[in-house]
Amino acid sequence: MKTEKTVKTAAPLKTSKATIDRLPLYFRTLRLAQDEGIDIISSEELGRRLGITPEQIRKDLASFGQFGKKGVGYYVNELKRNVGEILGLNRHWNIAIVGIGHLGVALANFQNFVSLGFNLVALFDQDPNVIGNRVNHVKVEDIKELSRIVQERHIQIGIIAVPAAFAQEVADQLVAAGLKGIWNFAPVKISVPPTTKLVNEDLSIGLSSLSYHITHTDS
Amino acid sequence: MKTEKTVKTAAPLKTSKATIDRLPLYFRTLRLAQDEGIDIISSEELGRRLGITPEQIRKDLASFGQFGKKGVGYYVNELKRNVGEILGLNRHWNIAIVGIGHLGVALANFQNFVSLGFNLVALFDQDPNVIGNRVNHVKVEDIKELSRIVQERHIQIGIIAVPAAFAQEVADQLVAAGLKGIWNFAPVKISVPPTTKLVNEDLSIGLSSLSYHITHTDS
Repeated sequence: MKTEKTVKTAAPLKTSKATIDRLPLYFRTLRLAQDEGIDIISSEELGRRLGITPEQIRKDLASFGQFGKKGVGYYVNELKRNVGEILGLNRHWNIAIVGIGHLGVALANFQNFVSLGFNLVALFDQDPNVIGNRVNHVKVEDIKELSRIVQERHIQIGIIAVPAAFAQEVADQLVAAGLKGIWNFAPVKISVPPTTKLVNEDLSIGLSSLSYHITHTDS
Repeated sequence: MKTEKTVKTAAPLKTSKATIDRLPLYFRTLRLAQDEGIDIISSEELGRRLGITPEQIRKDLASFGQFGKKGVGYYVNELKRNVGEILGLNRHWNIAIVGIGHLGVALANFQNFVSLGFNLVALFDQDPNVIGNRVNHVKVEDIKELSRIVQERHIQIGIIAVPAAFAQEVADQLVAAGLKGIWNFAPVKISVPPTTKLVNEDLSIGLSSLSYHITHTDS
């Protein structure tokens, strides 16, 4: 499954945040196209599926390299593999979830992470009633063991699924354990040093966006 | 809590999808600023908090009306209220969740929906072991009762939190019941008629984005 070919990516600093934010959308759309058995896709069709102009798509993808053939379109498999490599999905990061309440369990069972190449290798909680349980074949361990287990299992990404009041404390522990990235689901602003990358998942954005679209259809 | 003042919004058709997608981010950032006791915020400071250029912010907000004062900044409370009205959050939509597994319970307990003005008025499942339970003071009801309850409780938005295999079937039921909007968490493409607005929540996007940032710090 591994490919030796690497993509010559442009220096990330030259790439706008907006372009980077669109890459996972391209990846998802290409994955769906692949599942549908589509071999070649035009920037027009990609644009239609994503609600982005074909010009924007061509510009975004051109900033990373030459992926298409003029007048033909993009080769779905090749482009998907390349976008996946740009996103670093071929690195098969090891991830851990902290906070095995309902959200943590839902995330642990989320099959899409596996299909994207992430390995779920640890679950943590502080509740003695939860520690020792298994979710999706992974045992829940005591948060006190976090630092040791992160080292042993080479965990690079931590997902915070604890209540807001505990999120900063957990983030501090993840940073101290040496994680490269944190994905925060707690609805609170947390601080991490610049050496750790932080992505906040704000579920209220999807619902607000839906509210907008209903409001402006309604009138 | 209701305000009579309405905002003269530009025709939504003139507003780009990218701008609309940024509005919930503005709303969230303004809400946090309000919590911090900030009265006036500049486009530079908004830009710093959001990773968007001040020019883009001024352009986005100008397309909806005149919200700032040159050389001073935006009045946080006023701008937040106005962006909230543009997003339709002042309409206090009634929402229902279908699928009360771990994800459904996590969403039902999510306090941010309440603070955004959404009312959770119904929960649905097909499992007899789940029907009758209460989550966040709302009783889980039989999915067979969906159509009647949607009418009775004036439900406008439905959240799909069922496994992928059932998502289309549930979406069809929500459409038939007359809902205006669907927020889909199932990792599958569903089809709805153009009269129903659909927002897909794709959790793999956050994790892919984090992977990108770690990969390009790493090298």
